[in-house]
Amino acid sequence: MFKINENYLKLPGSYLFSTIAKKVNAYGNENPEKKIIRLGIGDVTQPLAPAIIDALHKAVDEMGSEQGFHGYAPDLGYEFLRNTIAKKDYEARGCNIAPDEIFVSDGAKSDSGNIQEIFATDNKIAVCDPVYPVYVDTNVMAGRTGTYDINTEVWSDVIYMPCNADNNFAPELPKEIPDLIYLCFPNNPTGATITKDELQKWVDYANKNGCVIIYDAAYEAYISEENVPHSIYECEGARTCAIELHSFSKNAGFTGLRLGYTVVPKDLKSGDVMLHSLWARRHGTKYNGAPYIVQRAGEAVYSEEGRKQLKAQVDYYMNNAKYILNGLKEAGYTVSGGVNAPYIWLKTPHKMTSWQFFDYLLENANVVGTPGSGFGPNGEGYFRLTAFGTYENTVEAIERIKAL
Amino acid sequence: MFKINENYLKLPGSYLFSTIAKKVNAYGNENPEKKIIRLGIGDVTQPLAPAIIDALHKAVDEMGSEQGFHGYAPDLGYEFLRNTIAKKDYEARGCNIAPDEIFVSDGAKSDSGNIQEIFATDNKIAVCDPVYPVYVDTNVMAGRTGTYDINTEVWSDVIYMPCNADNNFAPELPKEIPDLIYLCFPNNPTGATITKDELQKWVDYANKNGCVIIYDAAYEAYISEENVPHSIYECEGARTCAIELHSFSKNAGFTGLRLGYTVVPKDLKSGDVMLHSLWARRHGTKYNGAPYIVQRAGEAVYSEEGRKQLKAQVDYYMNNAKYILNGLKEAGYTVSGGVNAPYIWLKTPHKMTSWQFFDYLLENANVVGTPGSGFGPNGEGYFRLTAFGTYENTVEAIERIKAL
Repeated sequence: MFKINENYLKLPGSYLFSTIAKKVNAYGNENPEKKIIRLGIGDVTQPLAPAIIDALHKAVDEMGSEQGFHGYAPDLGYEFLRNTIAKKDYEARGCNIAPDEIFVSDGAKSDSGNIQEIFATDNKIAVCDPVYPVYVDTNVMAGRTGTYDINTEVWSDVIYMPCNADNNFAPELPKEIPDLIYLCFPNNPTGATITKDELQKWVDYANKNGCVIIYDAAYEAYISEENVPHSIYECEGARTCAIELHSFSKNAGFTGLRLGYTVVPKDLKSGDVMLHSLWARRHGTKYNGAPYIVQRAGEAVYSEEGRKQLKAQVDYYMNNAKYILNGLKEAGYTVSGGVNAPYIWLKTPHKMTSWQFFDYLLENANVVGTPGSGFGPNGEGYFRLTAFGTYENTVEAIERIKAL
Repeated sequence: MFKINENYLKLPGSYLFSTIAKKVNAYGNENPEKKIIRLGIGDVTQPLAPAIIDALHKAVDEMGSEQGFHGYAPDLGYEFLRNTIAKKDYEARGCNIAPDEIFVSDGAKSDSGNIQEIFATDNKIAVCDPVYPVYVDTNVMAGRTGTYDINTEVWSDVIYMPCNADNNFAPELPKEIPDLIYLCFPNNPTGATITKDELQKWVDYANKNGCVIIYDAAYEAYISEENVPHSIYECEGARTCAIELHSFSKNAGFTGLRLGYTVVPKDLKSGDVMLHSLWARRHGTKYNGAPYIVQRAGEAVYSEEGRKQLKAQVDYYMNNAKYILNGLKEAGYTVSGGVNAPYIWLKTPHKMTSWQFFDYLLENANVVGTPGSGFGPNGEGYFRLTAFGTYENTVEAIERIKAL
């Protein structure tokens, strides 16, 4: 008689953004006359840049011709893309990452969910709190997190690293030593980040204590301040302790196109075993590559035209961020983020819980945000708005919130 | 100190097709003047059909426009595609599968590798032997297969169901009752298949004994004989015991485009828990949907134009299959498959091992095939050729083999 993976049953509720989608759909169905503005899920709204559209059309034509057709992609991704990434994302920043240490995938969500597979189930994870829920949820599914306390919303075997106003939303080095440390800077959801010197401390801590840092750099394109690292490999010694995840979703609007990559340096080892070999094995066995046409689109992200167009797109969203930040401040909210990240993190007013504020905002302003508590216990009492809407909708949403 | 998933280290060698690629590349580099013909990996060679190219261009244009841009796809896939699949692949065959029981993904390889995650690690699997290596390898990674005997190439906790000339390459119901049964018909690599009546026995067996059948229907488009089921849901009672995997790679040439789907009927339960909910949770947490443009391409597969063009493509490959089958017979080989599947399964001559014949063929005919032993212990002494080459290359390969 078959048995299910009981760990799945430990997960409370459904995946955060699925819950939000259901709530919003229900409200929309009951109130069809209301114009709902979605600043909840971190989905982009601007169309793909012309350079990317051109690359896609060109690749599609190739796929329709006998000479240009491409079947299964190479395990790690096409060389044209991996070489470009190595050069533009790493060499240009003085980081030493070889093309064959880069694994192209269908996105950072998949990779951040799958990466835990190559580690033992009794490894202990540490996460920023609040943080992107995929890190914890996928470790729950693997049986790595112990039991869940429904009152405190805390897993017994997870090391939470609180990020709140007291520490300016930057986590402190954990006293209990974890095996795996998930870091995401610029952070989702708080929009906070840390300096290169601060990140160096994490790298040193990991090397000293035998931890692996899983570094999610999905939002690096939004960094506007100096001395904020775009990659963990800018830090000395990161090649022996860090895996880095990258997304094309936010810097290039690929949420509906799906592309990402993960870097596993060959110097990162457990005894004689390179984690690179394990991840390569997983990639080769359970995955069959990102579509050729999408990898060509990824290459276009780095072209001169592409970079120019995408810089304008990032600026567009960051202009929204500024508008939200200033608007909420004017309305008397306590806010942070929005400077090196497309997320604005606000304290809910009148001691409302995150979900109370979610309902309040949905019902009274018809604006959708994301309840902070969905990102971890220390997110309670906070709320995330994204800058990924259109400018017009962003302005309207803020005017509505101001009018409350 | 972090620890790795030691199960990965139990895997012998590298993933079969990675090994082949390395061997062929090495030979090619040493012998640059030789024209190597690849009939090894099951990759297609015909360009995407015009109806699919049109759908891709149209969807790319949408993604470049403000109104037509699509961000994150719905968790299960777009309704336009799921509705089409439910209607054309199931309703049309008298199967009762609802659109929300269909999960669109980036391909059957990912799904066939990931599906084991929703089951307990102490479940015991049964596999046809030989079979597509992903089923066993992904269960090895999850720690479900016991220890490996390097001499017999057998895992201690896997139930092997031999498929050889004695049983006409059709497995018998296992005496030891497994929890999960992987079936793939038409079979990869043998090209064999079973009738609807025979498949019904498996469904009855699974329902009686509390097993789940994971049914890989990746090659159903190649079925040419009557009374061979295209879907396991043609059998009575399959909704309570079977998960079905589908690929767009072979029927529509999507190996480089990546699209597949998995059906988990809501009647398939462990106690009160629907496996559908578990798979939905996995999909929502670790995956972010197939690209919009690729899902539109998938829709075009079912259009009147698309069907006509793809029928021609399948006929093209099956004409190759016939050529290989007849050519090898003329050359004195013992062969099977090639009638309901694009694979030809041949007995190696002169008692060569599978890998000996691989080297022999590569070096003397410059033709690449796949060693049968790579698909399981009972594949030893056999060899797979695919019909997915071009007609010209197929003819040349067979002429070269005949001339040996």
